[in-house]
Amino acid sequence: MSQADAAYAYLRALAAGLAACGVRDVCVCPGSRSTPVALALASQPALHAWMHLDERSAAYFALGVAKGSHRPVAVVCTSGTAVANLLPATVEAHHAGVPLLLLTADRPPEVRGWGAAQTIDQVKLFSGHVKWFADPGVPGGAEGAASLARRAVAVATAPFAGPVHINLPLREPLVPSVVDADPVVPSPAPLPHDAPELPPLPATERGIIIAGGMDAPAPAITELAAATGWPVLADPLSQLRCGPHHSSLVLDSYDACLRESGFASSMLPDIVVRFGAPPTSKALGEWARAARRQIVVDPGWRDPDLRAEVWPHDPNAVALALCAGARPVAGGYAARWQRADADARGVIAPGDGDHLTEMGIFPCLAEALPDGSALLAGNSMPVRDMDSFLPGMEKTLRVLSNRGANGIDGVVSTALGVAAVAPPAALVVGDISFYHDMNGLLAAKRYAPDLLIVVVQNDGGGIFSYLSQASLSQDTFEPLFGTPHGLDFAHAAALYGLPHRRVETWQDFRGAVTAWRAGGGTHMVEVPSDRARSLAEHRSVWAAAAEAVRACG
Amino acid sequence: MSQADAAYAYLRALAAGLAACGVRDVCVCPGSRSTPVALALASQPALHAWMHLDERSAAYFALGVAKGSHRPVAVVCTSGTAVANLLPATVEAHHAGVPLLLLTADRPPEVRGWGAAQTIDQVKLFSGHVKWFADPGVPGGAEGAASLARRAVAVATAPFAGPVHINLPLREPLVPSVVDADPVVPSPAPLPHDAPELPPLPATERGIIIAGGMDAPAPAITELAAATGWPVLADPLSQLRCGPHHSSLVLDSYDACLRESGFASSMLPDIVVRFGAPPTSKALGEWARAARRQIVVDPGWRDPDLRAEVWPHDPNAVALALCAGARPVAGGYAARWQRADADARGVIAPGDGDHLTEMGIFPCLAEALPDGSALLAGNSMPVRDMDSFLPGMEKTLRVLSNRGANGIDGVVSTALGVAAVAPPAALVVGDISFYHDMNGLLAAKRYAPDLLIVVVQNDGGGIFSYLSQASLSQDTFEPLFGTPHGLDFAHAAALYGLPHRRVETWQDFRGAVTAWRAGGGTHMVEVPSDRARSLAEHRSVWAAAAEAVRACG
Repeated sequence: MSQADAAYAYLRALAAGLAACGVRDVCVCPGSRSTPVALALASQPALHAWMHLDERSAAYFALGVAKGSHRPVAVVCTSGTAVANLLPATVEAHHAGVPLLLLTADRPPEVRGWGAAQTIDQVKLFSGHVKWFADPGVPGGAEGAASLARRAVAVATAPFAGPVHINLPLREPLVPSVVDADPVVPSPAPLPHDAPELPPLPATERGIIIAGGMDAPAPAITELAAATGWPVLADPLSQLRCGPHHSSLVLDSYDACLRESGFASSMLPDIVVRFGAPPTSKALGEWARAARRQIVVDPGWRDPDLRAEVWPHDPNAVALALCAGARPVAGGYAARWQRADADARGVIAPGDGDHLTEMGIFPCLAEALPDGSALLAGNSMPVRDMDSFLPGMEKTLRVLSNRGANGIDGVVSTALGVAAVAPPAALVVGDISFYHDMNGLLAAKRYAPDLLIVVVQNDGGGIFSYLSQASLSQDTFEPLFGTPHGLDFAHAAALYGLPHRRVETWQDFRGAVTAWRAGGGTHMVEVPSDRARSLAEHRSVWAAAAEAVRACG
Repeated sequence: MSQADAAYAYLRALAAGLAACGVRDVCVCPGSRSTPVALALASQPALHAWMHLDERSAAYFALGVAKGSHRPVAVVCTSGTAVANLLPATVEAHHAGVPLLLLTADRPPEVRGWGAAQTIDQVKLFSGHVKWFADPGVPGGAEGAASLARRAVAVATAPFAGPVHINLPLREPLVPSVVDADPVVPSPAPLPHDAPELPPLPATERGIIIAGGMDAPAPAITELAAATGWPVLADPLSQLRCGPHHSSLVLDSYDACLRESGFASSMLPDIVVRFGAPPTSKALGEWARAARRQIVVDPGWRDPDLRAEVWPHDPNAVALALCAGARPVAGGYAARWQRADADARGVIAPGDGDHLTEMGIFPCLAEALPDGSALLAGNSMPVRDMDSFLPGMEKTLRVLSNRGANGIDGVVSTALGVAAVAPPAALVVGDISFYHDMNGLLAAKRYAPDLLIVVVQNDGGGIFSYLSQASLSQDTFEPLFGTPHGLDFAHAAALYGLPHRRVETWQDFRGAVTAWRAGGGTHMVEVPSDRARSLAEHRSVWAAAAEAVRACG
């Protein structure tokens, strides 16, 4: 067997192994050294190949597909800086617990480090940002490929899920003599999941459940709320705020409530049980830290204060186990939370006026999206606005954001990936974050997934107006932090052939959503916003909510 | 002194130290955690801040500024995936020997790894791809900053130059109480350069000098050619093909000559002395490998065949040292090379027809560009076409390409960086490479450097038609390797407000160059090309050149 055929046999067995372990999607970027990898994956009938040109966008698209499908997703690229472009999404996947399989073609080991073309040190290139690194050497036949595939998928998907890097050194010639042959699909090997043994929760009325970010819903958390009588402060990313598990104990306006310091200090809990990622709300995070006891149920050990008891297990399994020994303790604590939450929500809910606000976007979208849609928020302002202004409801919305590393990069591609496998989807993203991943729109042109992209256009870095940098003089602030770019994204839409509307009123906005629902595919809506005005509107709403919370005493 | 003021004092001293060591340019991306770093650098009068929004583009722009100015350039970004976006350009700088100073803001060490917002493991994130990593801890005052700056610049600029990573953990509050104060500029500390002691070259007429890629010209190489009588096969990136050092011993058509196997085998040299990076020409690289003896003069140890004597010293210093003991040996070897080279060039030179070809772009540009211009080629096809078709001349052209890791990413930003500090410049880039770094065009909108961007538009991966992948069936080839995207880059030009022409004839092309020279700033020219036709044209020229070389035999 020739060198090329031996390598191809290995890669075909690897592709079959990935398919057997549940992989269905592969994001492929063209390249020369990666030729046999691309051919092997494309020849595996169980795998769908998504083609991309920018590896950075490709990896974020894969992240979206993995989130949308709850399956591990492979990414293929050629050697050199192509691999380096995978790092941002790899870092996000590592911190967000998303299983990616990075298959990077490489030059053979003997030429590494001596100036050979497109040859960089890819060995452990992602260092601690992957769960496992394997470099099986230049392949000489199919042996070992199935085992490697199984281990890679097992490691990537085991809690806390994350990326795995398989580096594949390949020698020329790269093109095999026969491209097609019958695939061999080994039988799948599902992973066992442990049921943890845990101590019971204390009997107290002053208990709080925080549902943090989780990509899959953990309905046992609302059962636990019923069993304990404790309110659930539901982060929008918890998959509990909008869906059939919604109950009167699931609260959504805690951020506004806890900005009122009197309420916050009088309502300090005896115990906080947080499931999943830390909450988006800074006010909630700081308040929870002040609780006497905090339990964090998270296989990712995400406890940045380093003061909680971390139970590194599956949230749903733990909530279910805790229900058994729980009983409610009478008192007015939960009722007072429910009242404050409802009163704050009453103030926060957008009015009937026709003046567009950044705050009104999420409520409006939540109303307009069909049941079962995905709703994504970019980092920086949109995810915070989603936390503040997305009301709880029984309609199911899959609510997502890249909160592993909170980057503004790759957001467009992630949303396109989600929409490609779990449509329809809507994304709300700021203009700088949108710009950062404009290249990701090539996937919209190619695959036209059912995605509405709402760009909040305030020509710059809106969030800095809310932070301490806003105290700087305007001469320093605008060039270094405001960073206006003056880009008219209608041209970007034209480049990728996407329908685009710049809306001025809510009526326009709703019309754009309706047009997207009717037409399908990927549409863009730009919501113009003035940074200073939006800041004033936010402050005024928070002040009114605080007043309402104080009044409900 | 408050925490914020202590950190700011440190960062101002760091900025002053960088300025004292010769840093003049800083590429800054906005962010919150990096606030005091940005403020400190912006307040240093000796530093010019270039603002960017996409960190990937920013780092490649910095690479271009460093190449254009022959000075180390700093890059500033915030914590999280922002840092990960610096990796591609860092890898390129590491392999190309370009001094970059990566100043990355970080969260304080105690929260790393526990799910804190925008907190990833930045410690040694670039692992072996930087020459030095420093994490000085959360700064508590100015002490140590000047030393750190001096060491960072010294390490980055010492041969073989490359990137250095300084990770800067910062605690809130981030904004200092006073932003401006008088800068303290310590005195500069230039590095000593060793003059190596080397054995003399053997006396033979069958000697070849290969001038490989070097960012700075090494005029002693042509002196060495005169002293030995050996031909210089001058890679376009050697800075010797186009400039006042050009001589009759400097040859440019070796690639076409060596494709003729009879010529190649009869002209095998006794010794090859290569200066700088491996040559672009694959034919030349393979031929040199067959020489009895090969010396590689390169502080970067770029000897992918692992069979040369590597002298890791400065090329110009070595060439100068070797001149002393050299003497020419009589014979017809050099004259035969000169004849073949001239005859091949006669065939290769573009005709007078008006039909646009990819091959004709470099000769046309070389004629049209003013003396002292920079000429950049993208990777994949353009740099190979430049090697084949750019004729030697006495006009000075600064000829550049990202050949450290040969990536197609970041090329637009690198060219903008070069043009920003060493205008005017022209870039020839393929459509996929152009797409990959379209975000880099924001710097064109912001700074309008004097750059002509020539996009060779064949709607896909043109180079694969020249490689073994071309043997695949069209059904497999087009989606996996041809990867047509159908993008009309006129929209990209409109997005960034750049003049754009799609040319159909050489007259159009020359008109576009003239319009750019007259108007200045950044212009785009698209040269449409058909992949199959261009392949046939290349093959026909190579066949004719081989015929000419055989005939002169």
